[in-house]
Order: sequence, then structure tokens, then C-alpha cells
Amino acid sequence: MTGRDGGAELTPIAGAPVVILVRPQLADNIGACARAMANGGLFHLRLVAPRDGWPQEKAWRNASGADRILGAATVFASVADAVADLHRVFATCPRPRHIVKPVLTARGAAVELREIGARGLRAGVLFGPERAGLDNDDMAQADALVRYPLNPAFMSLNLAQAVMVLAYEWWTAGDGTPPRELMTNETQVATKAELENFLTHLVDQLDACGFLRNLPKRPGMVRNIRHFFQRGEVTEQELRTLHGIVTELAVGRRQMGRLEDAE
Amino acid sequence: MTGRDGGAELTPIAGAPVVILVRPQLADNIGACARAMANGGLFHLRLVAPRDGWPQEKAWRNASGADRILGAATVFASVADAVADLHRVFATCPRPRHIVKPVLTARGAAVELREIGARGLRAGVLFGPERAGLDNDDMAQADALVRYPLNPAFMSLNLAQAVMVLAYEWWTAGDGTPPRELMTNETQVATKAELENFLTHLVDQLDACGFLRNLPKRPGMVRNIRHFFQRGEVTEQELRTLHGIVTELAVGRRQMGRLEDAE
Repeated sequence: MTGRDGGAELTPIAGAPVVILVRPQLADNIGACARAMANGGLFHLRLVAPRDGWPQEKAWRNASGADRILGAATVFASVADAVADLHRVFATCPRPRHIVKPVLTARGAAVELREIGARGLRAGVLFGPERAGLDNDDMAQADALVRYPLNPAFMSLNLAQAVMVLAYEWWTAGDGTPPRELMTNETQVATKAELENFLTHLVDQLDACGFLRNLPKRPGMVRNIRHFFQRGEVTEQELRTLHGIVTELAVGRRQMGRLEDAE
Repeated sequence: MTGRDGGAELTPIAGAPVVILVRPQLADNIGACARAMANGGLFHLRLVAPRDGWPQEKAWRNASGADRILGAATVFASVADAVADLHRVFATCPRPRHIVKPVLTARGAAVELREIGARGLRAGVLFGPERAGLDNDDMAQADALVRYPLNPAFMSLNLAQAVMVLAYEWWTAGDGTPPRELMTNETQVATKAELENFLTHLVDQLDACGFLRNLPKRPGMVRNIRHFFQRGEVTEQELRTLHGIVTELAVGRRQMGRLEDAE
């Protein structure tokens, strides 16, 4: 509970990692981080020595309703204090130098964070201050570093974007949505018999109007038409529309034919 | 060329999709989108009917040096105009309703965008205005919709975050960084012989100090120590440090022993 407006009905998800902002400078950014966390299902936020103190009204104004995350955030004096109760700690770091440490991609980190959570262990991810990033002592507290694969010609994530990518990857690592699926909403994918019924209707009308009058080419033309309509899943609703289109075009042609006959 | 400061040395990457912001409202957000694009290696930005006109100084101020993307951005009066030269169009859309259309995850879209680019075709991704999102006519221009898997209890991406996730996924789809690797910098992973050399040193000293004096337990204790040091890759530099630690601790103990003997 935040004691403020309340915002979105956010609750912790079991096994999710803690986000630890180390010496964050701007309350705006803390709010934007909370918003990014909420999008990716993260809840527990820890602040190490926030420059302007805590709480800060500006954070709430920039959180788009992720108020409960801010309300539940806790403040620590040092990274060591903030990670004391955790079992595994990762540190985000764009350009680590002179360090011997495992380096994970954001996706690799997300998969490991899911595994750590599934074992009932508590994990946290450190994010450094806006300009300087984490210092060498901060990174020495971490089991592994996380470096996002990004355009080396322009690696300039702001703090909330860095949290966003991690939160997005964490959510995605537990998500089973297929990479592509046909959304049909109120209708459903037509059976092959329903599609065949439409193709028979279409070919009958194309025969009637003379479109298929070249008999040697007719089988190939019918096959091409069939290939086109088979390319994607067709829904029952779309087949009804296609039936209507063929019928109406054919009626128009027949009426036109009658008019021409009458002239 | 932007005719302004110039910013980062960004250039188009072959096969990358075009980002199309449809009726964007705030120039700040257009700048933030350019920054997000640059992070993910995207370059071509199209604006459909930007509310406040174009160019806008505020966009440059919020782009963190992605000036060339803004300088090369083009403006169109309609979505139809903006997609006219493209072969495939995806539309980002958080909650599509009453539409029959393939829906891709961000990752699924990224993989398909890479494939489209590799075939030499041009693709674009539509992003709707800040509050309203894309309307039904906009979505009817697209081959497929893109819906990010995110926390259904809080799906509130701002425009630049939406672009960020897509750009990040596009970059990642072409990136071969292993999910986890040991960064060794100036040193390198030690060979098993080098590790064995250290373990021999350690066990010798543990024998000398009496730590392993329980002979029935000795083999298991040595094995556990071995397991610990085998758990992660150890570097040559770390082995030198470990040798030094064992030597110095042993020297201290021997000196202490001599002092005690002398008393």
C-alpha cells in the first residue's frame, strides 16, 4: 500500500528478481523504472543511497500508476546492505573492463533468473547511476555481469530503458505465446471443406464468365487460384465475405449482360 | 546529414526495417524513439502527420545524439503514403479487437523482419500515437500485428519503450553473443594442469598444518575442495593470487608456530 492514489493492482510474482537502483539521481527516473518493472511483472524495488532522498513525489508522477512498486520500495545505505539477503546478484554494465567475471546477455540473465527463482532462491539485479554506471566495488558484489547486445555504434540506454529490457526479458522467459498465431476473435479458421466449397463457387462463376475458357491453361489457372487462397488460414467470416463478393460480382455481370443483350 | 551538431556516426544497416510513427504528438517522444532506434541499429524513421509539425528542436534535444536518424526522417500525410514502397508492414498494437490478423510477439516479429530483410524486401513497423494507439484503418494496412508479451496487469509502454523493445529484439535476432561467457580481459582461463598445480600446493599446505590429519576423512575433504575450485573457470591470474594467499597464510602460520615454540 502506498498511502497515495493506489495506482494499478500490482502484486509480487513469486520468484521474480529484485531491482536494485544504485545511487539513482533523478526521482523521475526512479518512477520510470517502476513503470518499466510493472510492465515486465517485477515488483520489488530497492534504492541504494538515492541522491535526493526518498520518497520523492516526482517518482510517483512518472510511474504511470506503478505506485505500489514505489510504495513498497526500500532504501539501503550500501550495495552490501541491499544484497545481504539475496542468493544471487547480477550487475548490469555496458562496458566492463579489467574484470574477470561471467557476462550474460539480457536473455541469458532472464533465463538464469527464472531458474534461480524456481529453485526458491532470491536474486537481484543492480543498475548503476544515470551517468557513471556501477563502479568497480559495486560490480565486485555481483555473481555475474549483464551486458545487453546492442548497436556498438550507439549504446545509450537510459536507466528506465535498461530496466525495461531486463523486465521484458524476464517476463518473456516465462511466457509461452507462440511467435506467430492467427487472431480470429469472434470467428474461427475455416475447415478445408468450407474453403473447397468457396473455391467450387468461385471456379463455377469463372467458368460461367469465360475467365477459364482457355481449356489447356484451365488446370494451371485453377491451381494458382487455389494456391493463393491456401496461403494463409482463412476464417469462416472471411469465406462468407468472399462468397458474397463472387455472387455480387457475378450478378452485376449477368445484369450487365442482360442490359447489353437488350440493347 | 542533419545540418546540426551531427551526433553519433549512425548509418543505415542493410535489411533493417523502417520505423513509422503514426500521428505522433510530442517531439520529445520522437527524439526518444530515435534514441531507442539507434540502440537497436535501426535508422530509417518516417513520421505520419506529426501533430506539431516537423522538424522540432525538442526531438533533437531528447535523442542523445541520434541526430542523424532525425535528420534523415521523412514526413508523410497518411499511412498509405508511408508504406507505399514497402513490401511488408507490421503494426504494433497492445489490444487488438474484432480483427482477423496474424499476431506476432516482438521476438517473432524480429525474426520475420530479419528474414524479410535477408530476402531483399523492405519492411516497416507502425507505432500508433501516444494515447490512442493505431486505429482500425491503420491496422488494416498491416500484414500482421505485433503484441509484446508483457504483464497483463500493467501494460503501459510509452512510445519510446515500445520502439526500444522492437529495436532491441531486431538487434538481438542478428546477434550471436552467447547467453553466458566468462570475460577474462587481460588474463585467460587456466588449464587443468595449472589448476592441479595449485590444488597440489594447497593440499600440501593443508597436510602440513594438520587440516587434513583425519586420514579416513582426508580423501572426501580433498575431493570437496577440488569440487569447489572446479565449479567455475579459474583464470591464470586468479591462480597466481590463490597461490599467493596459500603461501602467505602458511608463512604466517609457520612464523606464529616459531614464536610459540620460542616461548
